[in-house]
Amino acid sequence: MMSIYLHDIPLNEAIARLASALEEVGLWKTLAKDWIALDENAIGRVIAEPVWARISSPHYHASAMDGFAVKAKDTEGAMLNQPLTLTCNQAEGIIQAMYVDTGDPLPEWADAVIPIENIEPIDPEGGPHQNPRSPFAIRVRASVTPWQHIRPMGEDMVATQLVLPEGHILRPVDLGAIAASGHSQVCVSRKPRVSIIPTGTELVKIGQPVKAGEIIEFNSIVLAGQVNEWGGVAHRFEITPDQFEAIKSATARAALQSDLVLLNAGSSAGSEDFTASIVKELGELLVHGVAVRPGHPVIIGMLDRNRCIDAASDRVSNFRKSFTVQNSSTKNDQSSEIPVIGVPGYPVSAAITGEIFVEPLLACWLGRKPFEPEMVQARLTRKVTSPAGDDDYMRVVVGRVGERLRAAPLSRGSGVISSLAGADGILIVPRGVQGFPAGAEVTVRLYRPLSELEQTIFVIGSHDMTLDLVSQYLSPKGRRLSSANVGSLGGLIALRRGEAHLAGSHLLDPDTGTYNVNYIRQYLPGVAVKVVAFVDRQQGLIVQKGNPKSILSLKDLPKADVLYINRQRGAGTRVLLDYHLGLLGIMPDSINGYSQEEYTHLAVAAAIASGRADSGLGIAAAANALNLDFIPLYDEQYQLVIPEEYYFSNLLEPFLELLNTPAFRNDVASLPGYGVSRMGELVAEVG
Amino acid sequence: MMSIYLHDIPLNEAIARLASALEEVGLWKTLAKDWIALDENAIGRVIAEPVWARISSPHYHASAMDGFAVKAKDTEGAMLNQPLTLTCNQAEGIIQAMYVDTGDPLPEWADAVIPIENIEPIDPEGGPHQNPRSPFAIRVRASVTPWQHIRPMGEDMVATQLVLPEGHILRPVDLGAIAASGHSQVCVSRKPRVSIIPTGTELVKIGQPVKAGEIIEFNSIVLAGQVNEWGGVAHRFEITPDQFEAIKSATARAALQSDLVLLNAGSSAGSEDFTASIVKELGELLVHGVAVRPGHPVIIGMLDRNRCIDAASDRVSNFRKSFTVQNSSTKNDQSSEIPVIGVPGYPVSAAITGEIFVEPLLACWLGRKPFEPEMVQARLTRKVTSPAGDDDYMRVVVGRVGERLRAAPLSRGSGVISSLAGADGILIVPRGVQGFPAGAEVTVRLYRPLSELEQTIFVIGSHDMTLDLVSQYLSPKGRRLSSANVGSLGGLIALRRGEAHLAGSHLLDPDTGTYNVNYIRQYLPGVAVKVVAFVDRQQGLIVQKGNPKSILSLKDLPKADVLYINRQRGAGTRVLLDYHLGLLGIMPDSINGYSQEEYTHLAVAAAIASGRADSGLGIAAAANALNLDFIPLYDEQYQLVIPEEYYFSNLLEPFLELLNTPAFRNDVASLPGYGVSRMGELVAEVG
Repeated sequence: MMSIYLHDIPLNEAIARLASALEEVGLWKTLAKDWIALDENAIGRVIAEPVWARISSPHYHASAMDGFAVKAKDTEGAMLNQPLTLTCNQAEGIIQAMYVDTGDPLPEWADAVIPIENIEPIDPEGGPHQNPRSPFAIRVRASVTPWQHIRPMGEDMVATQLVLPEGHILRPVDLGAIAASGHSQVCVSRKPRVSIIPTGTELVKIGQPVKAGEIIEFNSIVLAGQVNEWGGVAHRFEITPDQFEAIKSATARAALQSDLVLLNAGSSAGSEDFTASIVKELGELLVHGVAVRPGHPVIIGMLDRNRCIDAASDRVSNFRKSFTVQNSSTKNDQSSEIPVIGVPGYPVSAAITGEIFVEPLLACWLGRKPFEPEMVQARLTRKVTSPAGDDDYMRVVVGRVGERLRAAPLSRGSGVISSLAGADGILIVPRGVQGFPAGAEVTVRLYRPLSELEQTIFVIGSHDMTLDLVSQYLSPKGRRLSSANVGSLGGLIALRRGEAHLAGSHLLDPDTGTYNVNYIRQYLPGVAVKVVAFVDRQQGLIVQKGNPKSILSLKDLPKADVLYINRQRGAGTRVLLDYHLGLLGIMPDSINGYSQEEYTHLAVAAAIASGRADSGLGIAAAANALNLDFIPLYDEQYQLVIPEEYYFSNLLEPFLELLNTPAFRNDVASLPGYGVSRMGELVAEVG
Repeated sequence: MMSIYLHDIPLNEAIARLASALEEVGLWKTLAKDWIALDENAIGRVIAEPVWARISSPHYHASAMDGFAVKAKDTEGAMLNQPLTLTCNQAEGIIQAMYVDTGDPLPEWADAVIPIENIEPIDPEGGPHQNPRSPFAIRVRASVTPWQHIRPMGEDMVATQLVLPEGHILRPVDLGAIAASGHSQVCVSRKPRVSIIPTGTELVKIGQPVKAGEIIEFNSIVLAGQVNEWGGVAHRFEITPDQFEAIKSATARAALQSDLVLLNAGSSAGSEDFTASIVKELGELLVHGVAVRPGHPVIIGMLDRNRCIDAASDRVSNFRKSFTVQNSSTKNDQSSEIPVIGVPGYPVSAAITGEIFVEPLLACWLGRKPFEPEMVQARLTRKVTSPAGDDDYMRVVVGRVGERLRAAPLSRGSGVISSLAGADGILIVPRGVQGFPAGAEVTVRLYRPLSELEQTIFVIGSHDMTLDLVSQYLSPKGRRLSSANVGSLGGLIALRRGEAHLAGSHLLDPDTGTYNVNYIRQYLPGVAVKVVAFVDRQQGLIVQKGNPKSILSLKDLPKADVLYINRQRGAGTRVLLDYHLGLLGIMPDSINGYSQEEYTHLAVAAAIASGRADSGLGIAAAANALNLDFIPLYDEQYQLVIPEEYYFSNLLEPFLELLNTPAFRNDVASLPGYGVSRMGELVAEVG
């Protein structure tokens, strides 16, 4: 019977097992060195041998100015009203001043330079000379000191001095410094070769149509991109279906041409997870399961070169021979074993596995320090929980609200690649810690520079699809929008806690027919806010294409064959639903699915599109986006609630300007169910 | 008569002139768009059209676990001691549970998944079944809720949602998100083409031997590296000598194949500075001279395409025709004018000109934000002065000493490329400000991440050549050494001010024959320090090869034909000289050049090697490095003075370990005049 469970070991133990296995075969060090030409292609390479200056720079005494080379002694006594005249005329037998351009070598007899703007060119009669650079003589009205306006030999670097140490990653200016010190080549570490094998019968190449159960293969591109960025050379194999022999053969062939093999996926213990057994057949399985979330079904092993040659030649006869010939040039650089990492299939797990295992290994092979992300302290916007046994890598969005940095946790699903693309950083909840409360001060490893995060606008509250348009329009203005969907009420509460710069809200006050103001008085006492009109929008029932259940109004929701999908508590749309259900005397209990909650209009529409529900209250644009039908019911106003301190901030300026930008207004108005006539109006000032 | 003076204009005015000239010809915007394949080569490209999700992700309801798909309703009532049995056997006509792998689509009839570890596989008799994945039936002891362990369609992204906005620079995970949203291509901005023309008769290609007056050409590599790093494609021209027509022709040809031409150098007003007149002949000169240091002789202009075609075809007949044919594919993308920047020749000026003018222009053309370096507040270690009229870009080293970040200004020379390679950041002294006092809190734009700077060890005090070896050995340990040479006494004073982590010192107390301790008591009252032995070294007179002036001891220094080069006040070597001159009754005044000062042993040796002086007191290794002769005179002890708070710090640990590392000790001992027998000994504890 195959094993079902993995035996996860702690991360540091997994890394230690890999390191000691590599150490045993002499692979826990810089791989090899290459001498390469000193040109712009050297940028990003890691120096493998320290660069010592071969010549001094400058390598001669050079004039630092356009001017006249002189003997300083000859200028002694020159004063404003008591000028001295120095001859430039070689014909006289002596020469006291000679024109030099910047960078020209100093004549042997000279020891100073007078800048051209400090001399008067004269002719033999003492009158002004036409060409200031080739006069008969010059008149000087101030003395110079020895070595003035000269770049003495070695001013920049003296031969034998250290120019750059080993382990340094080359930048453009470094190439200048190395060239100036007399080198035409630089010794860098060889780029580690990493083969990436995507496996899985369900995988489909990018650009091919996909059916249910099929998955677009992109992990290999993400991993290849990571490898290249970290200084390696990635080679992507074609997709291999879930067949033991095919994967084994691909693994063997990959091992023979690489320093590291990444097998993605099949690293778990499912019915078609072959990686562990293949590693055992071709070498040694060191680790199967690491206590890291996301990513725990990680495999680490060492492949035996000889067994790989056999496995590869099983498939292609006399492959062994041809291989040996082909690779004779790199023979000295060949090890008896090749590490392999079985990378989990979930996209977030795959990318994080790259960061945890592949980056430090490449750093070691390249002889550079592992990349150290910037760490910041930030305050959690909401509680997070984590299984005690794992190191938990949580993706967070980070931004500054008021004085403090805030970290807002993103979706936890390891399949949610957008959470990684959208993440500003990682909060690690270590083994033994079961989570943090909201408001806790946590350490975040940043993916983006802090300066960029300072330009993040935190929008919280009700979800509206036009916020994506806002993101798109603000991006070229250097602002990023991070929006959290917690419903209108949740948004006001978040503003009170100082967790966002503004909230989107559409809370109807049935007594007055106005929006938000009464709720703001109740939930934001003492906070001065501006309420700005954003969009008018149509709310209605989203139903399946063709409306098969013939739903026409809220009265149809209690029908036995109708499954409803609701928004979460505190959402303006739910407030609207409950208000109208009350008017109609419909009990929530009577509606199937009333307790099924989603957090966005699009999620409600997606639930209906996929057949998970028949109907939900939402906006027309969501129905339209997923090609669903829409029964319009109510018009409502969606407004922005902005604390005064941010209303006048530089951060929000582009956002507020956008509300009066015709192109943006047109784009919004063209979405079904949206009106922009009030957009940008200051509706109310509260507090 | 040619103009001698430049009329510098302020930086913002220069940038505004360029921007408005570009605006006039429609070039102050994203250049053009390219659709490229979604693979790892897309990394670093800038998104030119927002990416909206084409399909939802997942695009079907997928099992989130290996387990059994069920109807949640069928599990109602299952309890630990009251299990329910669900049949998997299609033969029965009904099926209640079906095995699914992670990622498999959910069968139409199912609405939840039970993880495999939560079921008991059974055979028709109710006994355990051999294969947990294909049993006759399963026994469950807990109910599941609808949609549990399922990744519903759209969990990650819903079709039409914004995946990534325009202006975003692609990273590996972004490619995953774009692929998951159903795209196989991504629209990015075209890479701007930048031609770089190195000009100058004095220039020599890298790798060729150089004579006095010749300069190794590397600015074009630095500029090309910058352009590529910033998202452009650089094309380096061959070196063009200082001939008007040759440069004009190269400029015209470059313009016809580029979006931007960089001419380096000839941008000043020297006798062979042709850039300004060439720009005038081929187009319009907008700026000649910008009030920026280093870098003020910057030229900005616009080249006229037609005039360039004429100038290029002057040289090659019917070039115009062939050019038009060759480039027909990019015709739509051709502008009537091409910007040109005359880049100053000094390496630091050239690199800073790139940062100031080229980077923002590429950012505009690529449709991304200009790079915003991280800014930090740091305290200046010494006073800096600056001409009031210029924006002054000063290179500084930054590190943390105690609680504060410190910024130590580097050499000011615009020829000193090593100051740029060694810089951690730039301190801008703005126009109108004439400098800052020592200790001032200044803002520094960082070139390196702050995390790296936290690993910088600040060594101050006396110069010793083995500090370069320390740098090289510490680099792989993740420590950087920043050493400032201010002499032994200066080092002690810097320690008192909290400006460094340790000081190198060799201050002899003639009364006791000991080193440093009495000086520490005097200059560092109340500071607890450890004094650690570093090297024993030979001091003596460095003289020219073959000792042409027959200098044998200090007694020869007052001779009329001997020119001395001294160390600065406070240097231990100068203390040693003065002590022995006193013993011998020699007056400093009697020594020619006594007042000529250098700050390092190597600088003294370089002065002698270049003939600027005949002799100087210094260490054997410096004489040896520059192939000079050496008259050994005295043995001395060079020690490390380390405040206790740093002695026990994690930062200094690798440094102190190094003192007992055999490889390092051997390397030091192999340098002429060095002894390591005492290295690492704790000599004294003071305070």
